[in-house]
Amino acid sequence: MAATATSAGLGTQLEGIVGADHVRTDEGALVTYSTDATPLQRARPDAVVFPATAEEVAGVLRIANERRVPVVPRGSGTNLSAGTVPHRGGIVLVLTRMNKVKEVSDAELVAVCEPGVRTIELAQAAAAKGLLFPPDPGSQTVATVGGNVAECSGGLRAVKYGVMRDYVLGVEAVLPTGEIIRSGGRLVKDVAGYDLRRLLCGSEGTLAVMTELTLRLVPAPEASGIGMAYFPDLADAARAVSRVLASGVLPVTLEFLDRVCIGAVEDFAHIGLDTSAGALLIFGQDGNPALIERDLQRMAEACEAEGATQVRIAESPEAASEVLEARRTALPALSRLEPLTMLEDATVPRSRIAEMVEFIQEVAERHELKIGTFGHAGDGNLHPTAVLDDADEGAVDRAHAAFDEIFTRAIELDGTITGEHGVGSVKLRYLERQLGADHMALLRRIKAAFDPNGILNPGKLGS
Amino acid sequence: MAATATSAGLGTQLEGIVGADHVRTDEGALVTYSTDATPLQRARPDAVVFPATAEEVAGVLRIANERRVPVVPRGSGTNLSAGTVPHRGGIVLVLTRMNKVKEVSDAELVAVCEPGVRTIELAQAAAAKGLLFPPDPGSQTVATVGGNVAECSGGLRAVKYGVMRDYVLGVEAVLPTGEIIRSGGRLVKDVAGYDLRRLLCGSEGTLAVMTELTLRLVPAPEASGIGMAYFPDLADAARAVSRVLASGVLPVTLEFLDRVCIGAVEDFAHIGLDTSAGALLIFGQDGNPALIERDLQRMAEACEAEGATQVRIAESPEAASEVLEARRTALPALSRLEPLTMLEDATVPRSRIAEMVEFIQEVAERHELKIGTFGHAGDGNLHPTAVLDDADEGAVDRAHAAFDEIFTRAIELDGTITGEHGVGSVKLRYLERQLGADHMALLRRIKAAFDPNGILNPGKLGS
Repeated sequence: MAATATSAGLGTQLEGIVGADHVRTDEGALVTYSTDATPLQRARPDAVVFPATAEEVAGVLRIANERRVPVVPRGSGTNLSAGTVPHRGGIVLVLTRMNKVKEVSDAELVAVCEPGVRTIELAQAAAAKGLLFPPDPGSQTVATVGGNVAECSGGLRAVKYGVMRDYVLGVEAVLPTGEIIRSGGRLVKDVAGYDLRRLLCGSEGTLAVMTELTLRLVPAPEASGIGMAYFPDLADAARAVSRVLASGVLPVTLEFLDRVCIGAVEDFAHIGLDTSAGALLIFGQDGNPALIERDLQRMAEACEAEGATQVRIAESPEAASEVLEARRTALPALSRLEPLTMLEDATVPRSRIAEMVEFIQEVAERHELKIGTFGHAGDGNLHPTAVLDDADEGAVDRAHAAFDEIFTRAIELDGTITGEHGVGSVKLRYLERQLGADHMALLRRIKAAFDPNGILNPGKLGS
Repeated sequence: MAATATSAGLGTQLEGIVGADHVRTDEGALVTYSTDATPLQRARPDAVVFPATAEEVAGVLRIANERRVPVVPRGSGTNLSAGTVPHRGGIVLVLTRMNKVKEVSDAELVAVCEPGVRTIELAQAAAAKGLLFPPDPGSQTVATVGGNVAECSGGLRAVKYGVMRDYVLGVEAVLPTGEIIRSGGRLVKDVAGYDLRRLLCGSEGTLAVMTELTLRLVPAPEASGIGMAYFPDLADAARAVSRVLASGVLPVTLEFLDRVCIGAVEDFAHIGLDTSAGALLIFGQDGNPALIERDLQRMAEACEAEGATQVRIAESPEAASEVLEARRTALPALSRLEPLTMLEDATVPRSRIAEMVEFIQEVAERHELKIGTFGHAGDGNLHPTAVLDDADEGAVDRAHAAFDEIFTRAIELDGTITGEHGVGSVKLRYLERQLGADHMALLRRIKAAFDPNGILNPGKLGS
């Protein structure tokens, strides 16, 4: 590794911990690990380290802490808020070698795994035993469980099943000073000590490095079903969301696409969407087949009552996955319109969705931007997505200004600047606007309680 | 109020904040607020203060912080771990005047309330709109929502619905230094900042005083049903629990009573229990009537397959509540056997229940104690309950020795010293045994991040 002022001898020390094969300082590695999935964010680390055990993680952290070298833990790097970009150099600690599913227990309804397991692999291991791991973030085929827990990721099933935090029963973690602790375990009920496992969930790699996770599973539902409804405009669809939730149905999925997204998806995938519609609502249920039918029917009626122009319930699994395809394709379809895609996740209470999306559309027009909005209507979790030419500096500046207004409006509507993508470094400047100075000061004190020397993911949440 | 070294002028200051009517220093108040529901624990406060708003709470805390006077926040005082006994004197801050349910929204599936609302009132307000607030701790008719959240209470429905933490979406809280912060809100998805709302849940009044809670609700189930099964011994019942959970059924309730409890309940309530049985398992489901029937049937079959001698499914709501009565009566029935009842809640993974209960029975015999064990089998959450004569010092000592062994064994079995009753002051000495010194040191640093002068509930969790 390069001998810089801070790194002289560091490489040798790191190799002593993880072995020479697992410390990389070559150009390829440093470039690869200077980005995550966040556009326009890039910074080179000094070294990339691939530990295999909690003890190795502890060894790396002790060295880094002694030398005051920044450490950025990461999995697959699907982060959307630059939470895993090493803005201050130092070590990128890649946990993908720790990729074992250690146990899936159908009698205890838990899984135990290392952080570097891909989330989809965990879900598959659970499914093989007739169990469901409900959180299914969009990144799940690539992202790791550790990363998804660190971000408290959500997904398409959160209305009914909640998010990652609702499934974290136990954590083994290494503190920045090298101590290995455990919080919780395979217990649904455990109140011994502060709830550190759920504090670590969503802490974005700033407090500790998780090295083992014990996750709650549920019995797999027997079946699932999907329906869709078109509306003249988004406000109608938003009212339908409220009507569905007030009707006593708790859907597993309640997603929407606005006009821009419908058009982009249809141009891309040619699946016969009605591009004259102002909004498309996708609703799903799982469980017993008879109840699915009943709930889909109720949701269809709620949509009709709010002015849906066309409602359809998928008659087959193939038809259902075609409907979901429209939702899944929204981001790639928007992305191909322009070189740069800026995906956000401002979130508002479910009753404020129409207001928020109308505001987003107005902001887009005023700033001369193309912004499509899709998202998890059942959670109020919106993904306004600006597509633009990154060579056009004016457009990039206008997009930043637009998102600034969007975040401010989300906060005014009792919402949040981030529902599931995290604060990372790119939204840190908006965080105090939402939380206030006293709350921010407390976050910094909590950060210091874990990380007295500020070595873990500096410049991110809690810094 | 009495003019002691620390309290000179304090009473006047407190009256300036909450009004003279809401500061009590009379003998009656000081005696009333020197205990909670924990046996053998008693300590007099210097004053009892009843604030009405977050601002008043902030005012009281600022004064206490300046003067370094301990403050013990509490609701109805149903705490079972002496978490609300003012061991170091100071102010008991009673939140029962803050007792408004501010909102129940069926479109957003949330309730907003003050901390002093009784949990049953919140549940009733939700039910009036066709919604369910799932956590139903045994204390719910008396305890407050604030207290139940501060303890992360559980209840009879946790197998399916989880515990208090799974329903806390947002919190307004006052820091010991007087700042008012908000964490979360009416959003299922919100990852802006560390998850302080869930850190406060289960923090037992040691980090901040919660002054408003936003809680998640779910649509009320259409119906519910109950069944029961007798087993020759506890090991059979425990295997039936594992078989039920592995069968794809997620029951709403899965409770058990051991032989001692069955006998005590029958002696007390004369409801025709089979006192020759070694264990009684009570299983319940809620939701759609057809599914309830199917799941109860499956659970009955699982019990039969594990050697149940008698299985019965309640045919009517009356029959169902009779079955549940057996479980609800366990604690009062045991309590009447002797003057002193020591109720604990050691918890183990669900697959270790038989091992744990057999150990408890062996310990009871060895220490010549009467210990009945009942609890939430579906969660592994056991309530070994010793009944003894408090005038018999030897018996009290033997009970402490027995519970010491029980906690140690729970930890060895990957369990916890407390599933839902909290650490408080009585289990603080066991906490380090479970968590280790590094973890305890971290808890103390987190405590200091919130409470630099250690005024909030000193001598409890985090101290």
